[in-house]
Amino acid sequence: MSESRPGRPRAQRKVRPGASGREEILDAAAELFTTLGYAQTSTRAIAEAVGMRQSSLYHHFPTKDDILEALLADTVSGSLSFARHLAQGLPADDDGGPGPERAARLYALSLYDGTQLCSARWNLGVLYHLPEARSARFAAFLGLRRELREIYERLSPRREWPGSGDLVFRLVESLISLRADGLAREDSARETADAGLRLLGFGPEAERIRTLAAELPEPA
Amino acid sequence: MSESRPGRPRAQRKVRPGASGREEILDAAAELFTTLGYAQTSTRAIAEAVGMRQSSLYHHFPTKDDILEALLADTVSGSLSFARHLAQGLPADDDGGPGPERAARLYALSLYDGTQLCSARWNLGVLYHLPEARSARFAAFLGLRRELREIYERLSPRREWPGSGDLVFRLVESLISLRADGLAREDSARETADAGLRLLGFGPEAERIRTLAAELPEPA
Repeated sequence: MSESRPGRPRAQRKVRPGASGREEILDAAAELFTTLGYAQTSTRAIAEAVGMRQSSLYHHFPTKDDILEALLADTVSGSLSFARHLAQGLPADDDGGPGPERAARLYALSLYDGTQLCSARWNLGVLYHLPEARSARFAAFLGLRRELREIYERLSPRREWPGSGDLVFRLVESLISLRADGLAREDSARETADAGLRLLGFGPEAERIRTLAAELPEPA
Repeated sequence: MSESRPGRPRAQRKVRPGASGREEILDAAAELFTTLGYAQTSTRAIAEAVGMRQSSLYHHFPTKDDILEALLADTVSGSLSFARHLAQGLPADDDGGPGPERAARLYALSLYDGTQLCSARWNLGVLYHLPEARSARFAAFLGLRRELREIYERLSPRREWPGSGDLVFRLVESLISLRADGLAREDSARETADAGLRLLGFGPEAERIRTLAAELPEPA
């Protein structure tokens, strides 16, 4: 790889997951941002953690903000693709459409999104609360997250009850805190998706909804 | 006040809420930590924001960590006092006790805690995700928050279903993100407490539980 230091064998340098220099940078930055802090991490420290010259890092990401933007987008992009797919073909809002089918889509989204949040190598959602991440600089990420949130709301089978899908979105995102608290377990994402169904007022129907959800096409 | 600068009239200096220098420091620090960032805020900037000499600030708080500790503790101390009060006299765990009375206590706690999170002058819960706030230095605060979380769990009327009270705790804490997203409204805390009841599987019984909750003694 062109960015490796001369004389430094690749086998030693390549300690991070990712097929490309770009992915190695993202992994190192994710670790440093979540464990040390965003403000406390310099691009120099990131380059050193990857074993890369700073000039090579700048080739991939001109600024530290560009790295943060890519990491933040990664936290929602997979779930958003799936959400867009699930939202396709839904009847118009006022119509509502059959409750259990809508609920199944919302359940599938909750489970997938929650699983992503729990299983990603670094708990990047903790960066959402950075003052930096709220600035206009990150409007693109904020727009993606807003779209994901809106699809939760559109998928809610409780059309008569505005904000019900948003409550499920909030419950799923609370997995970020659960993980930060060291309390996330193997089944936390599923438990949370199930709790989302109860939150929507489903009791015994939950079993049928889970069955319908399992029949939906898998995420791409 | 001994810490005011000579020749600077108090009427000009006193721009922050709080009867004491200590409270003014906490208010200024809360603003800077939440809007600028913790790492980016120096004790010097805090002293300047209050109109106080740095040496006077150190008299109240020897380090910036001490200020953060006080602010973090403030986010849970009121709710924890109320929670301890509500947990008093509960029957032992296995016994369970009457469901609706337990549920009423959990509802009252959710509503009070959520209202605190929504109405505090600064949204300090966003600091929970700082790497700094997870360190041993803040063990005292982390212990208080853990105790609050455990009381949510103890108050859950679904004794057969471990973790149900914790889900309500997570839903209430999600008000921190809602507020950070600029989406908190007048009734968000109540809406969230109501959602907590549904999460516990209560439907039509919710009305009775809310009535019982209203009859509980007010927080001190």
